[in-house]
Amino acid sequence: MTTVEEKRVRIGLVGFGVVGTGVARLILEEADSIAAKMGVRPELACVVDMDTERPRPVQLPPGLLTNDLNRLLNDPTIPIGIELVGGTGAAKDIQIKMLRAGKDVVTANKALLAKHGAQLYQVARETGRCIAFEASCVGGVPIIGAIRMGLSANQIGAMYGIVNGTCNYILSSMSSQDEKFSQALAKAQKRGFAEADPTLDISGGDSAHKLAILASIAFGCEITLDDIFVEGIEAISREDLRYGREMGYCLKLLAIAQKTSRGRISLRVHPSFIAANTALARVDGSFNAISIFGSAVGETLFYGRGAGMMPTASAVLADIIDVALGNSKTIFNHLRLRPRSETQALIEPIDDVVTRFYIRVMAKDNPGVVARYGGILGDHNISISGALQHEGTGPGNTVPVVITTHRTQEKNMAAALAELAKLDIISGKPVCVRIVDIPQDKDT
Amino acid sequence: MTTVEEKRVRIGLVGFGVVGTGVARLILEEADSIAAKMGVRPELACVVDMDTERPRPVQLPPGLLTNDLNRLLNDPTIPIGIELVGGTGAAKDIQIKMLRAGKDVVTANKALLAKHGAQLYQVARETGRCIAFEASCVGGVPIIGAIRMGLSANQIGAMYGIVNGTCNYILSSMSSQDEKFSQALAKAQKRGFAEADPTLDISGGDSAHKLAILASIAFGCEITLDDIFVEGIEAISREDLRYGREMGYCLKLLAIAQKTSRGRISLRVHPSFIAANTALARVDGSFNAISIFGSAVGETLFYGRGAGMMPTASAVLADIIDVALGNSKTIFNHLRLRPRSETQALIEPIDDVVTRFYIRVMAKDNPGVVARYGGILGDHNISISGALQHEGTGPGNTVPVVITTHRTQEKNMAAALAELAKLDIISGKPVCVRIVDIPQDKDT
Repeated sequence: MTTVEEKRVRIGLVGFGVVGTGVARLILEEADSIAAKMGVRPELACVVDMDTERPRPVQLPPGLLTNDLNRLLNDPTIPIGIELVGGTGAAKDIQIKMLRAGKDVVTANKALLAKHGAQLYQVARETGRCIAFEASCVGGVPIIGAIRMGLSANQIGAMYGIVNGTCNYILSSMSSQDEKFSQALAKAQKRGFAEADPTLDISGGDSAHKLAILASIAFGCEITLDDIFVEGIEAISREDLRYGREMGYCLKLLAIAQKTSRGRISLRVHPSFIAANTALARVDGSFNAISIFGSAVGETLFYGRGAGMMPTASAVLADIIDVALGNSKTIFNHLRLRPRSETQALIEPIDDVVTRFYIRVMAKDNPGVVARYGGILGDHNISISGALQHEGTGPGNTVPVVITTHRTQEKNMAAALAELAKLDIISGKPVCVRIVDIPQDKDT
Repeated sequence: MTTVEEKRVRIGLVGFGVVGTGVARLILEEADSIAAKMGVRPELACVVDMDTERPRPVQLPPGLLTNDLNRLLNDPTIPIGIELVGGTGAAKDIQIKMLRAGKDVVTANKALLAKHGAQLYQVARETGRCIAFEASCVGGVPIIGAIRMGLSANQIGAMYGIVNGTCNYILSSMSSQDEKFSQALAKAQKRGFAEADPTLDISGGDSAHKLAILASIAFGCEITLDDIFVEGIEAISREDLRYGREMGYCLKLLAIAQKTSRGRISLRVHPSFIAANTALARVDGSFNAISIFGSAVGETLFYGRGAGMMPTASAVLADIIDVALGNSKTIFNHLRLRPRSETQALIEPIDDVVTRFYIRVMAKDNPGVVARYGGILGDHNISISGALQHEGTGPGNTVPVVITTHRTQEKNMAAALAELAKLDIISGKPVCVRIVDIPQDKDT
């Protein structure tokens, strides 16, 4: 049992915000249990932050907190630097400095990796170090490890992820409480599930960062944010949640990576109606989940908290242990990403994506409306799969007419929507939400 | 991108049954894509099986199949041996021989590890090799990697697992089709979800094997099968599934590992009524899922196929790659299991376990029955939480009286049941199923 000695590993932490506080707390409180279970004892060597005054909900041993990054960089007894500064500016310099100073880097910075990952990985290779980033995607769920190692023998056919807790909280709340978007957002902010400036989350940008990282690992390609079609949840109305529910659907902001029938990769983040009886439809509140379809395993699903102080800190610590054991380095060195020059041609443009749609128009209550509506769709080769028209009048004597379509290309729908918007029998802009049919892996 | 050379790794496979066939197929078909993605190219060096004649649904290159284990043992170019023989007899010798011949071992043999794991790990340590066993538990779900590495910074509070696809298939089918146990079992056998001799699965034994392995890793303790209380699903009737459903419950065979309030570990496999709105209740058919509660991450859930040729082969290949990269060795070496002498005192005896219960008696339709029934429970400090009595008569003019209880110790219930069984107003033996309240990790 005791053939292997306990390994002590000194950690330099940069960024003493929410997650940094969680990491410091975990190291201070759980070092014994981690050492007992894993044979690795993490030890906090220094904590670097511009703000050394603000009180944090963790008691650091005296002398650990500093605003001098050089204390970390110049200390040869510290092999691992944690970057929890966030953002794509200073954080990038800090990571590069740490790598050049001979430190392995652990980070939760998805925005930085999604934007400058290729460059940072290159610096890590040049310096013989590694970057570990399990905490960058869906903190509480060890999804990067699962894709990289657990599913390594599989060709990944598709991933469907609820990877932003803020959006899922808002959509769950709108749906279960029949709230407006603005009400649900305000509640999320009040309860700490949304930032004061929620733009990055509700625009789908944060989900796109995570998708870029996850898809690059799943498909072994360099993927940039430009490859990903992104639409946020700002324009979602509770009426559409309600009509969708009546038709058997639940609305989620999905991050989707799919191999298409033509061997390309479709990458997109958008509001998606999914069948209410699927596992992802039942993921409520701030929780995250990712369904992954592998060629050998079929469907797998991973569920847990995607953000928050302790779940993210848990992922950072897992990476620290993995780096200390030497595993992260090996995996990092063997991470093959097809370079950008090859990848570009692989990406399916959004216009070519084939999917189903939910369309709602506010139609004037006149004879012949449905015929003209359906006629335009038919002209664009779009066939109707379901329809819902409630009696009663909207503003200006209009009624909501909802239809769902069979599969069609995005460009067909775009053309049809442009024509629909011009119809004098329709009031306002048509509402269009994609319907995503998540494959059902069932017993046969 | 190409700084690291592709690593070729030659594999010797022992046991050319269902999973062995899947492993051979994955190696032969996916070597290119694995090499492209992971930088490791698995290469089948030999396949050892007693039966070299029977046709299998995979075409091996000529000369690979042999009945001579020595071809594997004596070939110094083969660093990894896969044991897929199964069982606890010959398989044990084969693993020991492979370790002593200097091979790392990859195995899916849960029965062997649950029974002789400590001894085999010892041989691996002595010989400086490692044993990798992701495929031994819930094949399609990389759960061992998740517990060992992804959640390594967490103290695990509890695990609740549906880890046997045969039982889940049978219970799902009984519930959704209102079938008898015998009907559902026959269907499962016909469709390949149950063995001709299903004893190991339906008795809960297979689930106990997996629980022993998972709990030992989660808690860092040596755990043996004797530590686990096991009850199978053979005696479950569709009536009880139906009454439970009316009361909001769904029946699953759960494998449970829980830290108790007294710091002990409760380990048990038994039919369990769980709230119908929990994620585990929605795991249908032959699928598996495990909820794990970690101190830092809260609830996480992992879902996928637990068995079958390709899902299990996928896990074997993941381990091969992990061993080839050197990671399995590091993790194996750092796996700390508190030895048996310390562990024994940690286990909560089943009599002391506190849980809720579902009880059904067939009561003679006489005045005062419920009072006497309730009186006996009260005498044993068991308080009633819910009750259900349908009108109508059973055989001999009896009616089913179902009650659910609040939390009480198993020994109280055992004593109450013994008294109930003696009551002249009750026909037959009372039916008793545990109700397991899976904690709900929700947004606050």
